[in-house]
Amino acid sequence: MVVRRLPKTIKQLLEPGSSSAAALTSITGHVRSIRRQKRCTFALIEDGSTSKGLQAVFKHGVRGEGTSTAMVEKLRQLTFGAGVIVSGRLVESTGPGQDVELVVEGLDGVEVVGRCDPDTYPLQPHHSGASSSSSGKHSAEYLREHLHLRLRTPGIQHTMRLRAKVKEALEGYLTGEQEFVYVHTPVITGIDAEGGGESFRVGKGEEGEEFFGRPAHLTVSSQLHLEAFQAALGRVYTLAPCFRAERSMTGRHLAEFWMLECEWGGESPSCDLHGLCTFVEDMLRYTIARFLHSGLSVSPPDADNELHRAAFSQKPWPRITYIEAIHILQQAQPLFTYPPTLGHSLQSEHEKYLAEVHFKSPVFVMDYPRGVKPFYMRVNPRTDMETVACFDLLVPRVGELVGGSVREERYGVLRSSMVDAGLIPSPPETEIIDSSSPHSPKKPLNPYEWYLDLRRHGSVPHGGFGMGFERLILWLGVGIANIRESVGMPRWKGWMGM
Amino acid sequence: MVVRRLPKTIKQLLEPGSSSAAALTSITGHVRSIRRQKRCTFALIEDGSTSKGLQAVFKHGVRGEGTSTAMVEKLRQLTFGAGVIVSGRLVESTGPGQDVELVVEGLDGVEVVGRCDPDTYPLQPHHSGASSSSSGKHSAEYLREHLHLRLRTPGIQHTMRLRAKVKEALEGYLTGEQEFVYVHTPVITGIDAEGGGESFRVGKGEEGEEFFGRPAHLTVSSQLHLEAFQAALGRVYTLAPCFRAERSMTGRHLAEFWMLECEWGGESPSCDLHGLCTFVEDMLRYTIARFLHSGLSVSPPDADNELHRAAFSQKPWPRITYIEAIHILQQAQPLFTYPPTLGHSLQSEHEKYLAEVHFKSPVFVMDYPRGVKPFYMRVNPRTDMETVACFDLLVPRVGELVGGSVREERYGVLRSSMVDAGLIPSPPETEIIDSSSPHSPKKPLNPYEWYLDLRRHGSVPHGGFGMGFERLILWLGVGIANIRESVGMPRWKGWMGM
Repeated sequence: MVVRRLPKTIKQLLEPGSSSAAALTSITGHVRSIRRQKRCTFALIEDGSTSKGLQAVFKHGVRGEGTSTAMVEKLRQLTFGAGVIVSGRLVESTGPGQDVELVVEGLDGVEVVGRCDPDTYPLQPHHSGASSSSSGKHSAEYLREHLHLRLRTPGIQHTMRLRAKVKEALEGYLTGEQEFVYVHTPVITGIDAEGGGESFRVGKGEEGEEFFGRPAHLTVSSQLHLEAFQAALGRVYTLAPCFRAERSMTGRHLAEFWMLECEWGGESPSCDLHGLCTFVEDMLRYTIARFLHSGLSVSPPDADNELHRAAFSQKPWPRITYIEAIHILQQAQPLFTYPPTLGHSLQSEHEKYLAEVHFKSPVFVMDYPRGVKPFYMRVNPRTDMETVACFDLLVPRVGELVGGSVREERYGVLRSSMVDAGLIPSPPETEIIDSSSPHSPKKPLNPYEWYLDLRRHGSVPHGGFGMGFERLILWLGVGIANIRESVGMPRWKGWMGM
Repeated sequence: MVVRRLPKTIKQLLEPGSSSAAALTSITGHVRSIRRQKRCTFALIEDGSTSKGLQAVFKHGVRGEGTSTAMVEKLRQLTFGAGVIVSGRLVESTGPGQDVELVVEGLDGVEVVGRCDPDTYPLQPHHSGASSSSSGKHSAEYLREHLHLRLRTPGIQHTMRLRAKVKEALEGYLTGEQEFVYVHTPVITGIDAEGGGESFRVGKGEEGEEFFGRPAHLTVSSQLHLEAFQAALGRVYTLAPCFRAERSMTGRHLAEFWMLECEWGGESPSCDLHGLCTFVEDMLRYTIARFLHSGLSVSPPDADNELHRAAFSQKPWPRITYIEAIHILQQAQPLFTYPPTLGHSLQSEHEKYLAEVHFKSPVFVMDYPRGVKPFYMRVNPRTDMETVACFDLLVPRVGELVGGSVREERYGVLRSSMVDAGLIPSPPETEIIDSSSPHSPKKPLNPYEWYLDLRRHGSVPHGGFGMGFERLILWLGVGIANIRESVGMPRWKGWMGM
């Protein structure tokens, strides 16, 4: 089967061996910069396929001497941001800065299909608005007010290419190397996830009527549903949007974000706590290596070294227990706003300290107290403190990047954790509910009953993890300061546009 | 970089050359069937990696003669659906039906990690419930009441593998062959899409307060946002969930569904109406061919021939105009419930007739009347009837699979279409609003103003299409009768569970 390809992109035209003065080449794109000389006009054209542009050279002769009014008018419309179709011959460039250029001859070789008025274009460089910096570069805050146009700025374009490349690497690892099956978990669910009350409600009408016949929410994590897929397909993953009605306006939180979540079944050593950590470390080393070799890394050398070290160091990333983490943090006092306390969650400042200052490396923190983690994590054999078989992966500059655990596969233990978490009533009233009865399918079961069903009927040991896709982009895209710059069209509390 | 792989799946163990009596092999999975003999018990184990199972042979000796009580109890727990970890040696099978089998010796080689009580397991074969068919196979309606367990049935497992394979083929085509960039379009949007009032509201609290500071909706299509990405990145696609508060309970509609949407820029012939059709046809032929060669096709021969013809026929798929379609349909009368009428939309019965009966092939219907299509489609040069440069791809058994168009890139024409559609007020009152002003970013702009901005500033000719992922699965998975069986956890009006 022969694939008929779309015309070459600028990225393809810039590849060695592409120049061919014999053939007419046509590109559709935008003017990124323009330089006007007496007999020639040089326009850098971009089409989004690469961070580089292609220089188009218009040989129009000396103005006023043989240059038609139409040509003068057309050249006048060639402004920053204008949409153009340019046809010419791709030749080796004689000027510095590029290998090839597109030589356009005559009026017909250029068409300004969408003008861009410098007086009103919000991205116009050297914009004099109050929100612009004095260098003429627009501030992140200013650009967020123009999300639909912000995409056209080199920084966000670069981040979009980075996202695509990282997604490709992660999926290549999971499906190509590890036999995972990609599945679509539902966005609309009947559960309020971890019961944090942070989920968005959906389907409730003005008069309180429920479209789905019961309360429905936007998912805050695909994990519980992914476990049902795991029991059917063995090794599964999803890359899906998740939602939290997140009221904190930090640079690490979004109301809508993408999560990579994986679940697989098995026994030690592939699916116990260390097996999960090994899997995550291998997957991320593979992904960072792909990223570093993709040409998309723009890190300054020192930060680049941090990613290089993470990807290629001979030593495994450190693994410590929660208790060890608390001890390290307590030694480091009085650095912290919140003193690290045994039995409490780690704060963002603690997480960053461990990865960035203490270990200078990604670090796995394992075996958190049962009380600070969700109900579905497998309870460890009792020691001094009741803990669960879980880990958080902390990385420099970002903090928590991945969270995972062995899942509680034992029906009795799980049920008791769910009662403790207030998700299901305590026995004996509900113990007799048989969700499997075909005779009363519509009786209002507890919304978590199906999750217990997974353990009632043929439970197997399994575990998995979730990784915030935007947080990974924050880590790899070293220059990105706020998570709102890690995604094309971020949503957060108070967001106004589109 | 050496990749440490998870243990082999059953799919990998069944590949030729995998048997190795020397090494102990361990698998985690579920019992699919069991056959008990005097000295041996045969259990077919599945782990979800393939539709095939691996036969485990337990040599336990004659019951009562040297078989321990513990072994008897363990064998008793080996029931349909039980979760097991089985260790043994993979040897060539002497019995019919499989190349290799796993020989388990002794009590330690099998662990029933999750029992499955035949009396309560909803998937138990030969279930006597009223909803089961007399063959013992459960009805689709019955299984929908147990979505979390339904995933474990061979039919849905197969469909899940099909989805993953089709997604891989489509993305391989777009990124590998055609240089498209994968992007994440937002799920939560400020627009009510095509104004059909079928979108779900989100973010509105009990007291009417808006979390996002303005009305927000779940997206019904990523297209408008994807056009903003197109202007920045050239060739873009997304595979993303979309939502419609769909009140019709047909076998073709879901409240939550996945859409593949593509946009690219350019001129004729790659991005005019025929260019779009060519692209879609090539992409689908490529995908069907991959699917047919994947071993996942279970079509009966005649239906299989239909897909084979679609993929490999020398002749391009037919392309007709809307007017020609109406003429064909009017010739076919009195077949239809709704008489085909010039100027009206095609009904589902019309679409199926064209593809299934008349052409016996996928068929593109182009140039619909402006009045029956959304505002963003490019208006054709005026002929007898005002039409837009769009197409619907109709396929046998499914009807509309893909819809696409050249987008209206001309500011004035687009604005006028949006006024006609009631999406923005007519001039002159709003014409003076300058959405680009940095000084009043929070003023309540019309929610579609940003879309007009894409044309105000550097518009380029572009086009694209959207394809319902579940509809494609319906077409390829020939035996699937209802769209609710094309997705793991379907959501529809009145849906009750999980």
